[in-house]
Amino acid sequence: MAALNFKDGDTRLRSITWGNGLLTILDQTKLPNTIEFIETDDYRRVADAIRKLEVRGAPAIGAAAAFGLVLGAKEAAYQMSDFWTNLLCISEELRQTRPTAVNLFWAIDRMMSVASRYVPGTNPSGVIAALEQEAIAISKEDAEVNSRISAYGADLFTGKQAILTHCNAGALATVKFGTALGVIRKAWADGKILRVYADETRPLLQGARLTAWEMIQEGIPVTLITDNMAGWVMKQRMVQAVIVGADRIALNGDVANKIGTYSVAVLAKQHGIPFYVAAPLSTFDFAISSGEQIPIEQRKADEITSLGGCRIAPEGIEVFNPAFDVTPNALISAIITEHGILRGPYEPAIARLKLMKGGKN
Amino acid sequence: MAALNFKDGDTRLRSITWGNGLLTILDQTKLPNTIEFIETDDYRRVADAIRKLEVRGAPAIGAAAAFGLVLGAKEAAYQMSDFWTNLLCISEELRQTRPTAVNLFWAIDRMMSVASRYVPGTNPSGVIAALEQEAIAISKEDAEVNSRISAYGADLFTGKQAILTHCNAGALATVKFGTALGVIRKAWADGKILRVYADETRPLLQGARLTAWEMIQEGIPVTLITDNMAGWVMKQRMVQAVIVGADRIALNGDVANKIGTYSVAVLAKQHGIPFYVAAPLSTFDFAISSGEQIPIEQRKADEITSLGGCRIAPEGIEVFNPAFDVTPNALISAIITEHGILRGPYEPAIARLKLMKGGKN
Repeated sequence: MAALNFKDGDTRLRSITWGNGLLTILDQTKLPNTIEFIETDDYRRVADAIRKLEVRGAPAIGAAAAFGLVLGAKEAAYQMSDFWTNLLCISEELRQTRPTAVNLFWAIDRMMSVASRYVPGTNPSGVIAALEQEAIAISKEDAEVNSRISAYGADLFTGKQAILTHCNAGALATVKFGTALGVIRKAWADGKILRVYADETRPLLQGARLTAWEMIQEGIPVTLITDNMAGWVMKQRMVQAVIVGADRIALNGDVANKIGTYSVAVLAKQHGIPFYVAAPLSTFDFAISSGEQIPIEQRKADEITSLGGCRIAPEGIEVFNPAFDVTPNALISAIITEHGILRGPYEPAIARLKLMKGGKN
Repeated sequence: MAALNFKDGDTRLRSITWGNGLLTILDQTKLPNTIEFIETDDYRRVADAIRKLEVRGAPAIGAAAAFGLVLGAKEAAYQMSDFWTNLLCISEELRQTRPTAVNLFWAIDRMMSVASRYVPGTNPSGVIAALEQEAIAISKEDAEVNSRISAYGADLFTGKQAILTHCNAGALATVKFGTALGVIRKAWADGKILRVYADETRPLLQGARLTAWEMIQEGIPVTLITDNMAGWVMKQRMVQAVIVGADRIALNGDVANKIGTYSVAVLAKQHGIPFYVAAPLSTFDFAISSGEQIPIEQRKADEITSLGGCRIAPEGIEVFNPAFDVTPNALISAIITEHGILRGPYEPAIARLKLMKGGKN
């Protein structure tokens, strides 16, 4: 597989960067109007950034939490006697930031598994160094994994197609390249993309603000639509495929992803359009048998009732604001992973993936 | 059928009112934050209000245009020799304001048919008086028609149900009561409504700004959702029926309505949920055989890229912004009219409706 030709020096598309004991987070809530970075050595600020969606996207959340734990370990070490208790508390605090994306728990589990190789009472500095190495590894692997996903995914496309995507599963949602947008980038480089249709993705507009912006940065033709246009765009035969990312995938292939994904999947099925999910191994939750067990984060009403400080609904209105929905496996044409393409029936395919994962984390 | 118990004195829910030679338009672009009226004796201002969606909703547009033509006739009369030419030009200008809702053309045709009973060269004052009477009749009939639609529609519901609606087909979209929301009002009065789910309806948020507001005014429990949540709400069995209005209905029962309606209809079908359309006879276009012949208005990009003066998408982004889509007849469980409930196959049912309409306009 040819690697993606991604501009390495372009930090504008880097969700997080690590250096000199500081985590730098591109504040995605301010995009595309303002490019602003949060530079912090405080794990609480990292936790806050995850909660506020300043950093978002399942793989990016995982990597950010891993670096958050490195910062937390340094702080825990101030009171050496309580180091392990403090570290556990901090890992728990990071775990609590968001409930749906499993990469968060995957990354923290992996980090704590590294820490656990040390005996309580040993000097924290060794633990901290090992944690930093592990966080850097998670981060580097994510870039490699996305590059592999991109290559596998691009092979699915033939001819020149227009592709619809929902939310942002791009470089901004990961450490580099992106999952769904990684595939689109590679397919574009291979001359297989005519145009990308980006659902704006209410309430927080990750499609309008982030996906559209990423595509413009790379010169990929992109058309922005409101979420409710997706069905009409399909009916008019304006798109030939759909590709999205994922926040958690169950053993049976049910996929939790940004709210609205389920509707798009139903519409794609209805129009005979393939619906692809691109996600790394770290997004699979091998502990749950179906999507019904995935906890769905409910977020605050003002995400829907206000926009940019402007009130757009009557005072006192009740709101239903689930951040995610679950797409049943039957609606998914293929799941693109760094280990290749999975197709239904997903249960045996994902069981094999689970074996591949082995004892690594 | 029992009449709706609608608060007659409450002008806040009146899209347009006529008196002393002035048309008063409730500026719906400012709702729900500001209740502001446009009072005008200039047909150009009426045309502008229709173009800018200060008055919107197929039946309301029709009635507003009728009064616009009364104002235009008065102005045309300043040059008595050119009265008829001017009147024709003005009717054409009003016709050009929006292309999809057929009630606009229906109302202007009806008005011009009244005018045509006068011989060119006669004193315009008689024509003006007749036009004013006709506009008042259109307006009054709309209220009666909606009351009848409401009663027929409410009979469709049994038990206590939660209902999803898209856009605003309420009092604000008509002269009084509303079509889809008229049905909901009547069903609520009959104790058949548990709750209304209102799609916010991007880009212009008629659901969040208008439907939610109307429901709150009347004390009907309402939950606001973003458009991309409709499928998930259905999957979770949170709604038992969908009801929407219409902007134009073809002879075969295909329905043009606010963008997103098509997606909702596909999703409803997929979940075995009845999908109802409520619309008066004036919304039927007996001149076209199918929805494919309905012109779809394309609106400006900034409706999607900006909100309340706040830029929400990158500069230079391409946008697809159709104001309407067409729902094929096969997805529609019933069409509720003032003459009763139509069910598929729609062609013979609508043919009978056409006969009923007769030579009236």
